[in-house]
Amino acid sequence: MKIITGGITKPQGFKANGLCCGIRKSGKFDLGMFYSEKPCVAAGVFTKNSVVAAPLVISKKHIKNGKAQAMIVNSGNANCYTGELGLLQAYLTTEIFANKLGIAVNDVLVTSTGIIGKALPFEKIEKAVDKLVSGLSKTGSKNFEQAILTTDLAEKEKTVEIIIGGKKVIIGGCAKGSGMIAPNMATMLGFITTDAAITPKLLKEALQKANELSFNRITVDGCMSTNDMVTVFANGLAGNKVISTKGKDFEKFQEALNFVCLDLAKKIVLDGEGATKFITVNIIGAKTEKHAHDMAMAVANSNLVKTAAFGCNPNWGRVAQAVGSLGISYVNENHMKIEFSPFNKKEISISVIFTQGKQNATVYTSDLSNEYVRINAEYN
Amino acid sequence: MKIITGGITKPQGFKANGLCCGIRKSGKFDLGMFYSEKPCVAAGVFTKNSVVAAPLVISKKHIKNGKAQAMIVNSGNANCYTGELGLLQAYLTTEIFANKLGIAVNDVLVTSTGIIGKALPFEKIEKAVDKLVSGLSKTGSKNFEQAILTTDLAEKEKTVEIIIGGKKVIIGGCAKGSGMIAPNMATMLGFITTDAAITPKLLKEALQKANELSFNRITVDGCMSTNDMVTVFANGLAGNKVISTKGKDFEKFQEALNFVCLDLAKKIVLDGEGATKFITVNIIGAKTEKHAHDMAMAVANSNLVKTAAFGCNPNWGRVAQAVGSLGISYVNENHMKIEFSPFNKKEISISVIFTQGKQNATVYTSDLSNEYVRINAEYN
Repeated sequence: MKIITGGITKPQGFKANGLCCGIRKSGKFDLGMFYSEKPCVAAGVFTKNSVVAAPLVISKKHIKNGKAQAMIVNSGNANCYTGELGLLQAYLTTEIFANKLGIAVNDVLVTSTGIIGKALPFEKIEKAVDKLVSGLSKTGSKNFEQAILTTDLAEKEKTVEIIIGGKKVIIGGCAKGSGMIAPNMATMLGFITTDAAITPKLLKEALQKANELSFNRITVDGCMSTNDMVTVFANGLAGNKVISTKGKDFEKFQEALNFVCLDLAKKIVLDGEGATKFITVNIIGAKTEKHAHDMAMAVANSNLVKTAAFGCNPNWGRVAQAVGSLGISYVNENHMKIEFSPFNKKEISISVIFTQGKQNATVYTSDLSNEYVRINAEYN
Repeated sequence: MKIITGGITKPQGFKANGLCCGIRKSGKFDLGMFYSEKPCVAAGVFTKNSVVAAPLVISKKHIKNGKAQAMIVNSGNANCYTGELGLLQAYLTTEIFANKLGIAVNDVLVTSTGIIGKALPFEKIEKAVDKLVSGLSKTGSKNFEQAILTTDLAEKEKTVEIIIGGKKVIIGGCAKGSGMIAPNMATMLGFITTDAAITPKLLKEALQKANELSFNRITVDGCMSTNDMVTVFANGLAGNKVISTKGKDFEKFQEALNFVCLDLAKKIVLDGEGATKFITVNIIGAKTEKHAHDMAMAVANSNLVKTAAFGCNPNWGRVAQAVGSLGISYVNENHMKIEFSPFNKKEISISVIFTQGKQNATVYTSDLSNEYVRINAEYN
């Protein structure tokens, strides 16, 4: 596996673009798209929040057949909690782009990020269709990455190259995160493109596995968004023999996809709202996988642990309090050891070690700073 | 029921005191006690955290027989995660006071609040025994209230008078809260005294009920402490006929106890770390009691909702996100209505109204401010 640059337009056949259509008053880019010249095998994972944004309802329907060719994203408005009108507008967004591109409506996916509960200014998107499509290019990934940001400070992308059956296969990805980052779902927006040839079934399986090991292992504020999704589009233009069984080729693909997703997930944490620290929480030697995972999340989501990290204060009492709060019987001072890396660094780790079992879990999070409070008190 | 003043020393036969023995370097009071001239019927509720502080281990044992006569509290050190030495010191604390008072060791309870994981400077407590006991007085409740504070800004007390069987019965209480306030346990330190005559069984039942409706309905930061406990001491000096059945007398007592506990619980929220708002979260019309309670807690513990409150920003998208995060199927925009009181006030309310069921829940919380972060980043 070779780390390269180029993002979502690096795989063959993908183009992207981004611009400001006027949803965000600041003039920042707020509308982006990417497109594959060849129809793709596609898979997605979506928020498990029971309050689901309108575009996700549409995208879930459209991706059901395991196919897609274009993705439309706006920032500045989540199109969530927007009733029938919101659903209609999400659908119409896919329709106007499908018409312009000359492809089937259900090969277009749509997603939105931004404030919840305000009507989408659909006419602004409508007016920007021509410009957005005509500007699609092989160098458009940066514009796309900018268009998906909200309170993020930096674009997040990762690209790798692998060889499958003698053919060069590229996987590119980008993501948007920052607030409302929590597990149990996609937890943010993630877009992966690849020119690998792979069956829909295995692509879905690979994405679910990669998601489980990456985006579901990060938490910024324990808040589960209504709009989160991660998708992967695979157009097969690399010319490799279609990956259709779980052999070596699949493993290679899975490993590369895991790597891209984990890198993006870590970048989301690093760019978490107000984050000054990147915190790795390790639980080692728990009795069950669930214990390990729940304890890691309890530590990572503890405001007391997160403020202690912000204050460079390795307060292990707060870590003990967090793991103990789950009420697991063997979790007490007689059976655990708490270890910290030096807390004055930007990247820190907290490990809780038990001798009761063999299950481990790792979760990534950021600290809780004044800046987090400022951002979220003022955001509207 | 008449609201009066006087706190834990207002009921007949109770005396209290508080002083600085030197655990806290600031010179603030850090050691307190109260004592009943007559042995009491007593009950307690304790943290459900599996990491339990040493004094709670001792107090749980001592209160098992439903009796107690004195309570010793120190602030500045939680005596938690302190191993065998901590347990020994907690026990010795009860022993030295029992000897001084001339009562049985297991009639003395002990509790501690402050930093976790540091050895208790036991010799400082030992040296202060004579002074603390000799200073016990009917006006000592204020000193006691000061001695139990950590990051609290103000003493919290409530006192009521009721008439039971023609006799005047007084219930007095005080509490300490501020950080690590969350449900599923006592969630802070609460001390209730009364001169009512009541059986141990009914006293315990009354306390559990009152606790469920008060201290278990508040949350400041979702963090469950290792040291929380609420106790009630009843010495019977009011001379009422012993409350031994669930008749009208019991109901009157229960109602007054509920009132005192809820008032103290609300005061804890108002004095929450960095709190600028008192937030009441109502869930109305949920299908089950658990749904109602879980949703209320999800809203109250959401950092995004709490920062929105701090910013006077009634962002109902964040409320929708919080209730939706539980994945309850009917919790979506088609079945719920979100209502806010004016958000520029100090006391605000957030109500989520469903038409799916008949279960309601109310939870109290504070906002998340810069000050919370500052306090918890610097605390050590």
